[in-house]
Amino acid sequence: MALAIMCSGGDAPGMNPAIKKFVDYSYKKGEEAYLVYDGLEGLIDNKIKKATHQDVAGIVHIGGTIIRSSRSKRFFEHEYRLKAFNNLKSHGIKGMVVLGGDGSFRAMEKFSSEFDINFVGIPSTIDNDIYGTDYCLGVDTALNVIRDALDKIRDTASSFNRAFIVEVMGRDCGYLAVVSAMISGAEICIIPEVEFNTQEVEKKLLKEIEEGRNYILAIISEGSKNTSQVHAWIQDKLGLETRVSILGHIQRGGNPTVYDRLMAFDFTIKAVDYLLSHNDSNKVVVFKNGEFGFMEIEEVVSNKYQLPQHYLDAINFLD
Amino acid sequence: MALAIMCSGGDAPGMNPAIKKFVDYSYKKGEEAYLVYDGLEGLIDNKIKKATHQDVAGIVHIGGTIIRSSRSKRFFEHEYRLKAFNNLKSHGIKGMVVLGGDGSFRAMEKFSSEFDINFVGIPSTIDNDIYGTDYCLGVDTALNVIRDALDKIRDTASSFNRAFIVEVMGRDCGYLAVVSAMISGAEICIIPEVEFNTQEVEKKLLKEIEEGRNYILAIISEGSKNTSQVHAWIQDKLGLETRVSILGHIQRGGNPTVYDRLMAFDFTIKAVDYLLSHNDSNKVVVFKNGEFGFMEIEEVVSNKYQLPQHYLDAINFLD
Amino acid sequence: MALAIMCSGGDAPGMNPAIKKFVDYSYKKGEEAYLVYDGLEGLIDNKIKKATHQDVAGIVHIGGTIIRSSRSKRFFEHEYRLKAFNNLKSHGIKGMVVLGGDGSFRAMEKFSSEFDINFVGIPSTIDNDIYGTDYCLGVDTALNVIRDALDKIRDTASSFNRAFIVEVMGRDCGYLAVVSAMISGAEICIIPEVEFNTQEVEKKLLKEIEEGRNYILAIISEGSKNTSQVHAWIQDKLGLETRVSILGHIQRGGNPTVYDRLMAFDFTIKAVDYLLSHNDSNKVVVFKNGEFGFMEIEEVVSNKYQLPQHYLDAINFLD
Amino acid sequence: MALAIMCSGGDAPGMNPAIKKFVDYSYKKGEEAYLVYDGLEGLIDNKIKKATHQDVAGIVHIGGTIIRSSRSKRFFEHEYRLKAFNNLKSHGIKGMVVLGGDGSFRAMEKFSSEFDINFVGIPSTIDNDIYGTDYCLGVDTALNVIRDALDKIRDTASSFNRAFIVEVMGRDCGYLAVVSAMISGAEICIIPEVEFNTQEVEKKLLKEIEEGRNYILAIISEGSKNTSQVHAWIQDKLGLETRVSILGHIQRGGNPTVYDRLMAFDFTIKAVDYLLSHNDSNKVVVFKNGEFGFMEIEEVVSNKYQLPQHYLDAINFLD
Repeated sequence: MALAIMCSGGDAPGMNPAIKKFVDYSYKKGEEAYLVYDGLEGLIDNKIKKATHQDVAGIVHIGGTIIRSSRSKRFFEHEYRLKAFNNLKSHGIKGMVVLGGDGSFRAMEKFSSEFDINFVGIPSTIDNDIYGTDYCLGVDTALNVIRDALDKIRDTASSFNRAFIVEVMGRDCGYLAVVSAMISGAEICIIPEVEFNTQEVEKKLLKEIEEGRNYILAIISEGSKNTSQVHAWIQDKLGLETRVSILGHIQRGGNPTVYDRLMAFDFTIKAVDYLLSHNDSNKVVVFKNGEFGFMEIEEVVSNKYQLPQHYLDAINFLD
Repeated sequence: MALAIMCSGGDAPGMNPAIKKFVDYSYKKGEEAYLVYDGLEGLIDNKIKKATHQDVAGIVHIGGTIIRSSRSKRFFEHEYRLKAFNNLKSHGIKGMVVLGGDGSFRAMEKFSSEFDINFVGIPSTIDNDIYGTDYCLGVDTALNVIRDALDKIRDTASSFNRAFIVEVMGRDCGYLAVVSAMISGAEICIIPEVEFNTQEVEKKLLKEIEEGRNYILAIISEGSKNTSQVHAWIQDKLGLETRVSILGHIQRGGNPTVYDRLMAFDFTIKAVDYLLSHNDSNKVVVFKNGEFGFMEIEEVVSNKYQLPQHYLDAINFLD
Repeated sequence: MALAIMCSGGDAPGMNPAIKKFVDYSYKKGEEAYLVYDGLEGLIDNKIKKATHQDVAGIVHIGGTIIRSSRSKRFFEHEYRLKAFNNLKSHGIKGMVVLGGDGSFRAMEKFSSEFDINFVGIPSTIDNDIYGTDYCLGVDTALNVIRDALDKIRDTASSFNRAFIVEVMGRDCGYLAVVSAMISGAEICIIPEVEFNTQEVEKKLLKEIEEGRNYILAIISEGSKNTSQVHAWIQDKLGLETRVSILGHIQRGGNPTVYDRLMAFDFTIKAVDYLLSHNDSNKVVVFKNGEFGFMEIEEVVSNKYQLPQHYLDAINFLD
Repeated sequence: MALAIMCSGGDAPGMNPAIKKFVDYSYKKGEEAYLVYDGLEGLIDNKIKKATHQDVAGIVHIGGTIIRSSRSKRFFEHEYRLKAFNNLKSHGIKGMVVLGGDGSFRAMEKFSSEFDINFVGIPSTIDNDIYGTDYCLGVDTALNVIRDALDKIRDTASSFNRAFIVEVMGRDCGYLAVVSAMISGAEICIIPEVEFNTQEVEKKLLKEIEEGRNYILAIISEGSKNTSQVHAWIQDKLGLETRVSILGHIQRGGNPTVYDRLMAFDFTIKAVDYLLSHNDSNKVVVFKNGEFGFMEIEEVVSNKYQLPQHYLDAINFLD
């Protein structure tokens, strides 16, 4: 049976190790492995290529994805989905592994409901905001990139009386911000899920500054949308010269960490095994309480990821 | 109640975040926190100091341990253990958190059987070879240091026809070697637990070299004790110029990763909570199947860690 | 003779290696070495301490400055400068090495014109904007921190059709931006010294996008003050989804590079030797055309650093 | 005019930026650019390809060399050199830029003396042991890789009473070892150029150990060939448990630093300009006292690089 792998939506570190494992493991299982380049756009335009071991040699340590990714407006139209299906059919491809997030999974659900194509999704986004799984591919690498940035700021922070604001990714989800705040000992953490109580924090920090605290580190999730407001608040109310860093796409780069490589391998093996042993798969591989499992795509995309309570609590107990 | 923290035996990344959490969390719980400097030697010589928040400010991102560690011959003698106990007593210390490995835990078991002192051990060694726990503090950082070295070798490996041997830590346990081989795509992995079948590997690799393979990466666990022998074998039998790297203590350094910081925090909170709620604790915090638990020190030290079967299997399936 | 070292103004990587060399070299020369903590503020408040080798052990690889820095409004008033002088006098300190920039040098010039105190400045700022020297301490480390960030963005950039804007430091000087653009192959570089010709660049890039270019990297110096404007321009005129990273103080952190350590040692030896052999020194150590020399402080602070022509030219020849 | 670039001998970081600049700059000058794959072996086997901008896109930040390198026994025979020349001729190639070391330059000298082919060599080796130039491409990256390893060892060194030996590259030349020792504050440095006086060092270090020194760092150049002997000496005479790291080819990997990228660009521009303006070039680009120049290949290969006196002196003044 021929299988294909595709990346869709934003890229995440760990995609390349998943692609390599997909190719090696498919051939080991006696199946043919195909690569879909440029995501859904490439699916429509038939950028589909039978993979060789050579195509995926020496890629496990590279960030991003060698088969690239895309978003596609055309894929919302039936005519282009039909075109995509005919492309897959012409190669004899029966099942697809899709590395992506909610949007990509929704597209594949629609696609597989219309055509005879199976797919298994692997949750891949540094935001870690997909329902049903504790872990999304790329999160550990992103967190360690943020950690490295915060460690550098710590070096310079203690040299001078200052406040530092670091904005990290997370449009709808404060996961990256909370964990970064915990492991860096930040004093302030602001995320979309929790209203930030300036008055209480102000009182506490003013007291600490009086007692000798000479710098403050604040982590803000981009989704909370108030970096410049917090900037003004710290300067005005706490009286500290304040500097802002916005990490942006640096968080998506970097060589995948050991954890992301191991997770990429495990996610991929689960996905391929599922495709090979089920005829109508329309699932997402999830990692929950230390174990891998499968969830209906419909359940994944129709629910919203909730940040676990102990992370929400952590925000109020930053030292 | 007064509690103390001590490092014993070899150091591991993650000890500093554990020390910081110990101090902050103890005070938050309303207890006094003490630091024992220089391990068992310092316990005997009363290098014990009541901790301030200032002592542990800005240390989470530093490798090694700011309170240092040691091995101690004197501690094998009763007279010195008595001295150590009297030191603890003079500070009113009732419980200790000990970051260390098997040897350290054995020493503490003896100590606590003779004197009225409780302790909880936190498994801390990059070798990941302690019975009863899936994870020892420091392993994720060590693996990522190895990964970084292997990624660098990959850069240069493909420039030239060569074999590269990298010796990693692990005196009795091939954990670091196996995982490093998996995540780097090494062709050869040699560990103490598995006899290495040169003939079969030789046949396979000679065939691949004939087909165009232009470099080989071999990971060897220091405990397998045959790095120079393997060197000779590759040069003679596979005909490739071969270069050796021995990573040594580089693997123990480096800023603790996000995972090691989070684990350090969790291990420490479990240990302190246990000491505060049990009167005769003599336990090790273990992390098994994704959950924290406690194991009798006696059980931990009287059993040998076994590398899980899927790691042993992985050695035979390196691509 | 007693000498002191002080950091003033913004910190820069390389200050710690300079501090260590200052202490070790002064004692080797048979002189006493003092550390002034907290910059000019500490000078006024007598935070001056005779240094031991132990104070500076193990600091060469740490970013920031262990003796901290400050800016001081009080130092503008004669009464506080008198206080500062009396502090130095009470320790018998005759000469000072000052790690800082223009502002700090101006303060010291005033100070040394009023009181019997010699000083030699070492240009220390990642902006590389001090007149008379080709190199300021910290620049190589800052450039490599920026490089690391840009390498990460390259990983992810080619995965997706996008533009990336990275804002780097440099309030009055585009040095960091130009060199970063050169070594990363950026398509756009905007600095305070050169007016940016949007029309011409727009034409060129639109043509390249038509021919297949799938991402754009733009480096902007913070001093050019138009990051959000460029953001809008790229989105509107070039039609690429655009993401912004603002590196901020990450650029000031990080372990000093080999080059910054060697320069720190050389700058410091030159400064100490000068103080020991001249009675009325009021100089800055400069590094010009590969050689060290000394320049009157007055000349340094009354002239403006000019970015060399070949850097200005480079902006128009980015590929 | 058609020009070609080739790597020969061991690889060095910075080769990729040089290759990219070669292609971009040649086309900018209106010339054709060719890539010779697999070094001299590829020259004989006609692995020569006209370069496109696409071939060299996104390579500046990658270690090693994308066109690979080799050593060649066949090239010592006239028949193969003739074959190589005919290959170049068939592509119309008149001049070559060769990234390599002494051995490669000698081969090219022979080659260009027999056939109508010009070449300019760019000194490329992390050993920094080529006569006539202060700098060889790759050295700054290699030094920073070593620095990173030593910084990690420092983290763990102070945790425990131990000695650490780190063996770095340098078969005939102690450059890497000396500079690494200087910037890491090593206590011992052993290189091929200087006889190591064990007795004197032993006396000095035993005194320091008595006074409280609790670890020793020794850097040894591989060319001094006595790592295991020094190991035994430290354990026996200084009484410290001693651990060895051999960095090996890790030193050749890693993303090229800012300095190596800038040097790669400058070396390459000089080389191409020379080829385009001289008809019988047989030169090496050298960087001496901060300036670029050209030296007859014959002079380069018939002289031995001497480590500057201040580096030799530094060995006796390690603190």
